Amino acid sequence: MKIKVINPNTTHSMTRKIGECARRAAAPGTEISAVSPMMGPASIESHYDEALSVPGVLEEIRRGEAERVDGYVIACFGDPGLFAAREAARGPVIGIAEAAMHVASMIGNGFGIVTTLERTCGIAWDLSDRYGMRRFCRAIRSCELNVLDLEDTGSTAYQVILAECRRAMNEDKIDSIVLGCAGMADLCSSIENDLGITVIDGVSAAIKLVESLVQLGLKTSKRGEWAAPLPKAYSGLMKDFAVS
Amino acid sequence: MKIKVINPNTTHSMTRKIGECARRAAAPGTEISAVSPMMGPASIESHYDEALSVPGVLEEIRRGEAERVDGYVIACFGDPGLFAAREAARGPVIGIAEAAMHVASMIGNGFGIVTTLERTCGIAWDLSDRYGMRRFCRAIRSCELNVLDLEDTGSTAYQVILAECRRAMNEDKIDSIVLGCAGMADLCSSIENDLGITVIDGVSAAIKLVESLVQLGLKTSKRGEWAAPLPKAYSGLMKDFAVS
Amino acid sequence: MKIKVINPNTTHSMTRKIGECARRAAAPGTEISAVSPMMGPASIESHYDEALSVPGVLEEIRRGEAERVDGYVIACFGDPGLFAAREAARGPVIGIAEAAMHVASMIGNGFGIVTTLERTCGIAWDLSDRYGMRRFCRAIRSCELNVLDLEDTGSTAYQVILAECRRAMNEDKIDSIVLGCAGMADLCSSIENDLGITVIDGVSAAIKLVESLVQLGLKTSKRGEWAAPLPKAYSGLMKDFAVS
Amino acid sequence: MKIKVINPNTTHSMTRKIGECARRAAAPGTEISAVSPMMGPASIESHYDEALSVPGVLEEIRRGEAERVDGYVIACFGDPGLFAAREAARGPVIGIAEAAMHVASMIGNGFGIVTTLERTCGIAWDLSDRYGMRRFCRAIRSCELNVLDLEDTGSTAYQVILAECRRAMNEDKIDSIVLGCAGMADLCSSIENDLGITVIDGVSAAIKLVESLVQLGLKTSKRGEWAAPLPKAYSGLMKDFAVS
Amino acid sequence: MKIKVINPNTTHSMTRKIGECARRAAAPGTEISAVSPMMGPASIESHYDEALSVPGVLEEIRRGEAERVDGYVIACFGDPGLFAAREAARGPVIGIAEAAMHVASMIGNGFGIVTTLERTCGIAWDLSDRYGMRRFCRAIRSCELNVLDLEDTGSTAYQVILAECRRAMNEDKIDSIVLGCAGMADLCSSIENDLGITVIDGVSAAIKLVESLVQLGLKTSKRGEWAAPLPKAYSGLMKDFAVS
Amino acid sequence: MKIKVINPNTTHSMTRKIGECARRAAAPGTEISAVSPMMGPASIESHYDEALSVPGVLEEIRRGEAERVDGYVIACFGDPGLFAAREAARGPVIGIAEAAMHVASMIGNGFGIVTTLERTCGIAWDLSDRYGMRRFCRAIRSCELNVLDLEDTGSTAYQVILAECRRAMNEDKIDSIVLGCAGMADLCSSIENDLGITVIDGVSAAIKLVESLVQLGLKTSKRGEWAAPLPKAYSGLMKDFAVS
Repeated sequence: MKIKVINPNTTHSMTRKIGECARRAAAPGTEISAVSPMMGPASIESHYDEALSVPGVLEEIRRGEAERVDGYVIACFGDPGLFAAREAARGPVIGIAEAAMHVASMIGNGFGIVTTLERTCGIAWDLSDRYGMRRFCRAIRSCELNVLDLEDTGSTAYQVILAECRRAMNEDKIDSIVLGCAGMADLCSSIENDLGITVIDGVSAAIKLVESLVQLGLKTSKRGEWAAPLPKAYSGLMKDFAVS
Repeated sequence: MKIKVINPNTTHSMTRKIGECARRAAAPGTEISAVSPMMGPASIESHYDEALSVPGVLEEIRRGEAERVDGYVIACFGDPGLFAAREAARGPVIGIAEAAMHVASMIGNGFGIVTTLERTCGIAWDLSDRYGMRRFCRAIRSCELNVLDLEDTGSTAYQVILAECRRAMNEDKIDSIVLGCAGMADLCSSIENDLGITVIDGVSAAIKLVESLVQLGLKTSKRGEWAAPLPKAYSGLMKDFAVS
Repeated sequence: MKIKVINPNTTHSMTRKIGECARRAAAPGTEISAVSPMMGPASIESHYDEALSVPGVLEEIRRGEAERVDGYVIACFGDPGLFAAREAARGPVIGIAEAAMHVASMIGNGFGIVTTLERTCGIAWDLSDRYGMRRFCRAIRSCELNVLDLEDTGSTAYQVILAECRRAMNEDKIDSIVLGCAGMADLCSSIENDLGITVIDGVSAAIKLVESLVQLGLKTSKRGEWAAPLPKAYSGLMKDFAVS
Repeated sequence: MKIKVINPNTTHSMTRKIGECARRAAAPGTEISAVSPMMGPASIESHYDEALSVPGVLEEIRRGEAERVDGYVIACFGDPGLFAAREAARGPVIGIAEAAMHVASMIGNGFGIVTTLERTCGIAWDLSDRYGMRRFCRAIRSCELNVLDLEDTGSTAYQVILAECRRAMNEDKIDSIVLGCAGMADLCSSIENDLGITVIDGVSAAIKLVESLVQLGLKTSKRGEWAAPLPKAYSGLMKDFAVS
Repeated sequence: MKIKVINPNTTHSMTRKIGECARRAAAPGTEISAVSPMMGPASIESHYDEALSVPGVLEEIRRGEAERVDGYVIACFGDPGLFAAREAARGPVIGIAEAAMHVASMIGNGFGIVTTLERTCGIAWDLSDRYGMRRFCRAIRSCELNVLDLEDTGSTAYQVILAECRRAMNEDKIDSIVLGCAGMADLCSSIENDLGITVIDGVSAAIKLVESLVQLGLKTSKRGEWAAPLPKAYSGLMKDFAVS
Repeated sequence: MKIKVINPNTTHSMTRKIGECARRAAAPGTEISAVSPMMGPASIESHYDEALSVPGVLEEIRRGEAERVDGYVIACFGDPGLFAAREAARGPVIGIAEAAMHVASMIGNGFGIVTTLERTCGIAWDLSDRYGMRRFCRAIRSCELNVLDLEDTGSTAYQVILAECRRAMNEDKIDSIVLGCAGMADLCSSIENDLGITVIDGVSAAIKLVESLVQLGLKTSKRGEWAAPLPKAYSGLMKDFAVS
């Protein structure tokens, strides 16, 4: 089984980290490719960044379809372009926020999210609505870290995140913590060890869900909202995105 | 990995069928045991039947814990005793309605459920609320078949179910059909072939979700609502259920 | 009119207390019987305890039907087995959480619940959803008391509960307090006197609601979800629960 | 116990009918007075009529308070002025829509409402939201009858209502029918007999709920939203409504 | 275009202030008349006051219709009589709470309301539900000021309101503040200047929305719930409200 | 006041039509510019098309900011890129679906949407949730027309749309119809005349709302979710979108 993990930003150190987490989670026989798009923002911290990461994500989906990829993971906690990607793909496409929230709802009755910037918390709340997971989401906390601070190995980022997770654990009546950024994927077990609470990384969770769907023979349904895009003219910088 | 599939009713022909579906879905290396409890109703078609199936389910969980089972599936579409089972188990426990609904929400934007008796539709609606899946559930239809009609191989049950699934497909604006009874697990691919719409069987879906959770190292959280039951006296027929 | 009050746990001192509250609330001419089942847990503090109390509750319903009981109260704040009991009974069946929440919504615009253990708060929130009462429920607080602490007359339980009720009154913007445990039924007027806020006991409330329904000639509707259970085989410890 | 039933319209034949239903429902020892206000519309079929019925309702509450009435019923299915009346009264005040919906939610899992005019259905849907009862309300149907048609004993009103109730019973998956107009209170048992489905009249239901609250010693909470109106100047036609 | 602004209370100093705000907001060519009714309460601080302000509001609508007014604003934050007024008017009618909440949802993702008395906060929450705006309303705070304190120019009211707005800004994760009383309309720019957060006054917002609707040729729809009131007898103090 | 209307697709005949509707709706003194982006799809009929229209929309916002535009309208019924545009703009940005739904909720209690393709109905339902307008949205119907069929003046598109609007009017209990495609903006008054029901065009509505916000001095709040995008590297085709 081939699963393509798309990190929607163009920071390759993060893509490598995500790829490692994905491979650790994958079953024997699952082939993981982890990529960054060839266009787009270095990090995603706003609706603007999200929107402009999507063309790159869709280009990677198109390549993946040509390579007969079986399923995809979108590895940014805003799940940018998820529904557009489902239209463009035959197989299943899972976002890491989607995966983490669903999984959290199965092992505890309430989860909290710890993410980077306060300004993105609204995006996460909206996703929890979109996936039906709001009833399980008790609180969303931010660390006021930039995404790329997570790539700076000498930074105090880990301590800041750990402290916020501790507050979540102590104050928010939660059964587990969801890490709200793909760049935190490698911190999962450290935080779990340091705090003694279940910590969920969306990258690993999404890998398992895509594997599950593929093994169940479930593809994205093409009957309704996620049918293939219609052929039409595209122009300007977007001209190569036309489907035929 | 050991997964125990508990069919909460005592009809062994159904348990065998469920076990076969479970084994087909399982990954290499997953060991499936499929059981019926030693007490309870022959079929589950009401809140009353559900409630009285739960002690038997919990007894099987207790045995499973002694046998170091890694995770459990409750294989009746009402997911009877799911939360009590989570308290009693260390590993994850997934209900087949829960599994089917979550999976359906990832491959289409709306699903329909086709189940046995009208009187159980309210139970399924309530579960869709409980799991956050109501926004994806477009309609729930019943065939007015009894659960055990599904075990009568000479019956017209398949045709009745197929006809109802066709109506769901044509009238309910759905992307997939969820089969609302563990006894229908073996009909999944036939209906899919006959109708050309994705059909989801909760037993297979639940197997993959439990495998996923186990591989992710995720157990039922013991911090909150699903902590282990407290030690206390139990009496009468229930005396052996006391935990110590 | 005969009303049977079923305390789902087997602690007879609590059953006596519940019976006294019920009789104080009952109209002249209402005959109250208060019972504990002959099987089940000594106290109910989890989904597990709830689930295993239900067979005993249903056995008491069956006896009640034989004795031509007019209506039932299930006197545990988790309302265990309520819907199964409705299937098994001709007359109305009311849970004490259900009764307390409905009544509270009629005399104030927001209520708070004070209950025993944190781990049961999720159950109460879910019931508030189930009955449509979440919009009136402002907060649910626990005292971290075990249910049977309430039976220990020398304990400090009352002071602990009073303190938590005071916090609820001062911090939660509520018009009334609902006591979240049948074992607190006798504390209602003391707390009300000590704090000067309306305090609602579900046992008394449920008695009045059952009386009301019986006097209105309203029985549990048998048209839909709460129709009588279907005849079928039951086996093992549950064999006597088969309806014929 | 003194209960005052206020028919917010000024049609005395309807008030008499309401009074009779109320007295039939009342317990021995309950003294029922049924009145129409001295001002307002002959019937209530719009927001406009509702709004202009409220001063008359509040005047009757004020008189009731002077007469030491224990509780009130507002006997129009829009429950006009319910919250203002609660502010003005010491004891409980119940609307008939509120009463009927709460009661219906306890004896079945879904109810339908049959009312007079289509234009008032939105008001009933909004009340179902207001009371938390929308999840139990499956459908609201109108007969396109004017309220005062119900007072014309030679009319075909009964047949029209019966036909609509039959459609509700057959098409709306309901366990009971709530009659959506105080003027239908006397039709309850006829429809129940003709159709064989539980039919709920809000007037009777409200009487029992007010009696229940009074016997429980529960008054309208004065801590929050329903505290007594503040003293202030009133002018013009409204000058006598000032509280002091 | 003629817009009539109805201050539902009878305090003329407040009406003048509201009229000035309205005129400042109005487009060239919009003719504003600002009135108090000839009957009703001096201020509105409860359901009771609201209900008794409505006849006066409706009388002003009737006069407005005779004068061919194009649209109306109801200038009290409880939007008293809004739906009744829509039935009585041909043109659009907008409440200031409605206007402020809608506008706030377009320029930020979350707003807070700062109002006078705690007892009216529930009314504002209910309006946020009624207009679909609850998802944008993060918190409602009261200053424990009486409405008429705002008319006392020597009072400390401004400092009290400013302090509460500051707390809202700092603690409630909001993008803007909605002032929850028509009597605060003139404080909008001062608070905005003092705090550096967007502050929304419903009077100005409502003027622009009514102008917009009139310019779009949109009148209150008479097809459904807001059709003109039906002709019928009215009696007592209300006798002049009959439509014919 | 300068308002820029961005038609997110690249079909200039549609942009001209939209511009004409916008100018007809605009107040004297409002300067309207209507543009198509220089990149993107010829029509928008899927999540894929929407996503790929957004970079072009954002480029137009950037140009608009350089030209000191006061406010923006996004003139496609999916409101693509609305939140990203709000981050990038100082002034208000309104989507036509947003505008039409808000306006419809003020002149009637229920609206219906008539749009082009069934596959886009889910997008419109989700927007109704996003804006808090689901409670007013009774039904969404599609005509199974492609967007560009609306540009073919010899087509039967008008008759098809009219027929669907008639069904909506007769079957969906609605007070008004919202046209669910910017390409239908010019059909508004014809349909209204032919059917006698209020028909709402989002382009006109959005113009009035942007004018209103600008005149009120309300800009997009920069305190929270819609703060300006952070400076960072952008690469590939997207490299010019970096903010500095």
